[in-house]
Amino acid sequence: MNANAKFLSATAEVDSAAVAPLPNSRKIYVEGSRPDIQVPMREISQSDTSASFGHEKNPPIYVYDTSGVYTDPAAKIDIRSGLPTPRAPWILERDDTEELDGPTSEYGQARLEDPALAELRFNLTRKPRRAKAGANVSQMHYARKGIVTPEMEYVAIRENMRRKEYLAELKASGPLGERMAEMMGRQHPGFNYGANIQAEITPEFVRDEIARGRAIIPANINHPEIEPMIIGRNFLVKINGNIGNSAVTSSISEEVEKMTWAIRWGGDTVMDLSTGKHIHETREWIIRNSPVPIGTVPIYQALEKVNGKAEDLTWEIFRDTLIEQAEQGVDYFTIHAGVLLRYVPMTAKRMTGIVSRGGSIMAKWCLAHHKENFLYTHFEDICQIMKQYDVSFSLGDGLRPGSVYDANDEAQLGELKTLGELTQIAWKHDVQVMIEGPGHVPMQLIKENMDLQLEQCNEAPFYTLGPLTTDIAPGYDHITSGIGAAQIGWYGCAMLCYVTPKEHLGLPNKDDVKEGIITYKIAAHAADLAKGHPGAQIRDNALSKARFEFRWEDQFNLGLDPDKARSFHDETLPKDSAKVAHFCSMCGPHFCSMKITQDVREYAASGMQEKAIEFVKGGSKLYSKA
Amino acid sequence: MNANAKFLSATAEVDSAAVAPLPNSRKIYVEGSRPDIQVPMREISQSDTSASFGHEKNPPIYVYDTSGVYTDPAAKIDIRSGLPTPRAPWILERDDTEELDGPTSEYGQARLEDPALAELRFNLTRKPRRAKAGANVSQMHYARKGIVTPEMEYVAIRENMRRKEYLAELKASGPLGERMAEMMGRQHPGFNYGANIQAEITPEFVRDEIARGRAIIPANINHPEIEPMIIGRNFLVKINGNIGNSAVTSSISEEVEKMTWAIRWGGDTVMDLSTGKHIHETREWIIRNSPVPIGTVPIYQALEKVNGKAEDLTWEIFRDTLIEQAEQGVDYFTIHAGVLLRYVPMTAKRMTGIVSRGGSIMAKWCLAHHKENFLYTHFEDICQIMKQYDVSFSLGDGLRPGSVYDANDEAQLGELKTLGELTQIAWKHDVQVMIEGPGHVPMQLIKENMDLQLEQCNEAPFYTLGPLTTDIAPGYDHITSGIGAAQIGWYGCAMLCYVTPKEHLGLPNKDDVKEGIITYKIAAHAADLAKGHPGAQIRDNALSKARFEFRWEDQFNLGLDPDKARSFHDETLPKDSAKVAHFCSMCGPHFCSMKITQDVREYAASGMQEKAIEFVKGGSKLYSKA
Repeated sequence: MNANAKFLSATAEVDSAAVAPLPNSRKIYVEGSRPDIQVPMREISQSDTSASFGHEKNPPIYVYDTSGVYTDPAAKIDIRSGLPTPRAPWILERDDTEELDGPTSEYGQARLEDPALAELRFNLTRKPRRAKAGANVSQMHYARKGIVTPEMEYVAIRENMRRKEYLAELKASGPLGERMAEMMGRQHPGFNYGANIQAEITPEFVRDEIARGRAIIPANINHPEIEPMIIGRNFLVKINGNIGNSAVTSSISEEVEKMTWAIRWGGDTVMDLSTGKHIHETREWIIRNSPVPIGTVPIYQALEKVNGKAEDLTWEIFRDTLIEQAEQGVDYFTIHAGVLLRYVPMTAKRMTGIVSRGGSIMAKWCLAHHKENFLYTHFEDICQIMKQYDVSFSLGDGLRPGSVYDANDEAQLGELKTLGELTQIAWKHDVQVMIEGPGHVPMQLIKENMDLQLEQCNEAPFYTLGPLTTDIAPGYDHITSGIGAAQIGWYGCAMLCYVTPKEHLGLPNKDDVKEGIITYKIAAHAADLAKGHPGAQIRDNALSKARFEFRWEDQFNLGLDPDKARSFHDETLPKDSAKVAHFCSMCGPHFCSMKITQDVREYAASGMQEKAIEFVKGGSKLYSKA
Repeated sequence: MNANAKFLSATAEVDSAAVAPLPNSRKIYVEGSRPDIQVPMREISQSDTSASFGHEKNPPIYVYDTSGVYTDPAAKIDIRSGLPTPRAPWILERDDTEELDGPTSEYGQARLEDPALAELRFNLTRKPRRAKAGANVSQMHYARKGIVTPEMEYVAIRENMRRKEYLAELKASGPLGERMAEMMGRQHPGFNYGANIQAEITPEFVRDEIARGRAIIPANINHPEIEPMIIGRNFLVKINGNIGNSAVTSSISEEVEKMTWAIRWGGDTVMDLSTGKHIHETREWIIRNSPVPIGTVPIYQALEKVNGKAEDLTWEIFRDTLIEQAEQGVDYFTIHAGVLLRYVPMTAKRMTGIVSRGGSIMAKWCLAHHKENFLYTHFEDICQIMKQYDVSFSLGDGLRPGSVYDANDEAQLGELKTLGELTQIAWKHDVQVMIEGPGHVPMQLIKENMDLQLEQCNEAPFYTLGPLTTDIAPGYDHITSGIGAAQIGWYGCAMLCYVTPKEHLGLPNKDDVKEGIITYKIAAHAADLAKGHPGAQIRDNALSKARFEFRWEDQFNLGLDPDKARSFHDETLPKDSAKVAHFCSMCGPHFCSMKITQDVREYAASGMQEKAIEFVKGGSKLYSKA
């Protein structure tokens, strides 16, 4: 079962499926205030409207691009060398970090020196960095000092997605462009439940939101490879994809492939939840090749170090694990510091007890020792480590409900309150924080989760798993949870952790990763539209126009998954000629409502409209009102 | 492409995939006040809890069953003879209908006499029926006269799903049963937006809701094969699956297979939207073999009769089509009578014009003749036909938005108002009515749709397509729309029309039908939970208990799709032994949170809880509140 034997660093290759640009897409870079701020976006070009629909030139569309240089044909990809390091100069020039001689964690040193691992070790020539003595290198710290970092400017440009320039260029291009700008830019007013949505994101707004704790940029100084992104309720809703092996299955190469696959389809961050063999080495390969922030749950690895015996865990082992991972470049840590001893007995009467792995480990530890959770008692020590590398907290919801039955119970809400208290402590250290949330919650209880979180955690970004709105559909939990994710995203959740179709049943493979990512991109985008995020509707508008004008290729290419759209269309009408046909297999050639509507437009335009209005004025109404 | 040549009535067979009972499931029948009221339910049996979890006997669970006798091993299935006719005696004993000599529509007669159709014609030996002169045979008419029909009693029993008896039996079975009844019956309070949810549905309540127009039982007197069901906001949320061929693809046998497949997975009604060859014969095969109500859009067939030229349609051709289909047994007709001439020009400035097929046909007709929609001008004539057979109206939203851009515009909302006026007219004739709704609507505008519909259509049941909450995911529109469907179901929508993954791309095949049905069962059930529908949570509770206790087979079998759940589990852990293992491939054998929680429970039960509480009382809190 274990495929690790096949993985050798000397022959490691990138997944070829992850490197081709998406169809009709070109990676562009928008330059910031300095030449080394180069913010990637994906430009999707469109074909012209056909003559029968008025022969219009359709402008390209710009979309948020999480795929990194993998989809840039100009980039040389070699996963054995890892990605370029756009953040390196920014980190260096701040002059508040120092290069270490090597890993300072005992475990990191041991792994580096173990000759048996040589054949699968990533060959990192760079040394880890750490804050200089007494320094705090978190983005929150800079923000509170009033400094706009290149990372902050980067995410501001990224969030805006060239919207203003795009519409201005269109308008300036003539009467057609003006009409096109009006059409593409039109959007329904949102309802944002008290979010502070900006017409345009400025670097200063980013700084302010981070200083306030309402947003985070997960960006470890040892992960210079990332393209910075921001998580906060006043920004685009983000999604996370979980990968990671278990003791039962999967290998390093599979996990790296899942990462590149997840970001190709839109994953904003990736969590490596490995619990099997070679956790340390797997993580190194993932981080060195990941342009998105990587999160982990360090307690998983700590538990492996004590051979799975929760009661044998110690603060020292955990601390060494934090440092080990921080020096590799993990951007955020899930820490289950809110699982307090007094909450544990509250879970005994639950339908499904404690379903969080981290939560159950800590619960077991607490009870075994009759002591308070050491993650709680050492929370300030953890903060000290976090700020030396700028690792963000993802305060874990170890007591999240594992069933609709257990939703919003006292254990869950008690822990949430504690997470709010811990947030204040982390903020005292200028450490960035987000808060994890449930889980399994029926629709009518979702908003209570969001409202309590905003209130008790002072608007620190919420990061929820789903929530799953029913338990009765194993095999479809990407859908049971996508329904809840769209809603909580609308209510103010900043990042949605995906659930794949395999949830509760098995370890997701690449197909499941893609299905989960696309489902969550849908949920996040639906939430952006509902909140009225400026420009969110441009892509919907462009795709709808393409659909209406039978520009099949454009319809496929503007969608979240051009490959699947094309293959579905091909199933019934495989010929190339069908791609320019003004009909599809649902209605056939003589019976297309879109086609008939075109006729209606021509009628309407030809003066019939006047006559129709006259007719109505003349008393076409047949029945009087009830 | 056309597979019709292969279909011959002499050799027609049932789809073998549709007839096996679902795993561990048994069809039971609950008898009503008379022996010929036999209401089907599915009983799912469960295994015992294993010794390590306390060795409990788990009671069977009862679920709503739409699959008809196909899943009853005691039934003899021969699609050439059609289904049994449980409603026949009820219709006869009312003594308000008469048997006709044969079809009274010209088209129906012509098809019957065409020798070329003999080989694919369903051999119906029964003659059609019609109301006696002056009689009204609608369920609404009976309801308003104070009559509780067997159909009404049937749906009351069906909606209750033995919940009261189930919990009472459990309670009476001893202390374990008492605890089990408490666990299974526990449910979060719902939030129902003003619905009138009953603790128990009585036949009288059903009658009252139908009399009031707030619910319908679609039940044509020529469809005695159906197992009655009810659609209304105060009942379980229902789902519809669309099938039907087009001129490009599909055959009679494929469409019958899609019907049996759709009801196997939970379709409450099925619409036959065929527009291709042999519409009349295809429909006959579907109706004769369908235990669920069948809906159609008669204008599709009328258009075929005039060779696709909308302007050639006449009231006479349409009227003949209504009678043809009513005498076959169609239970509800989508009628686009709200597409008024004055609304048509409002669509010219839309992004996607008119996307309803029926709507665009009528719009074209209106403009071509400068006349008001003949479905509107002849609406009372249509009512006269409907009440002679008890065909229900599904008032079509011919101007529904085809893109987020067009959502909630004046054309759509104007038509909705007209549908409200038409509802009053239909009700004057005691004809049952539901109202069709959109379409493409971003989340923040969904509730407005529901609220306006309730207000303007006086709570006539709403029946919506989705709505799709974004346009950017062709290939995943079951998900973009499932998100909207769950929400509008919660807000008060009575029936959700599914959208399959092929939407906008091609004609759905059997796999797509199943994916659409399961997605919509999820949406409908999530809505039932959110509304607080009594007993809705029993299945969630049972499945969660099975999940927690590692009863893998029970977890699969209690879910909406046992086959997929099992196959997903098998992908990573194919061995039979893994089905009884206390772990899964996500975490592996040594790292399962559920397992650890069991340990926590044992700790908690062993008196540690007391000590933990003492510890906390003694001041375990480390940080003072901020």
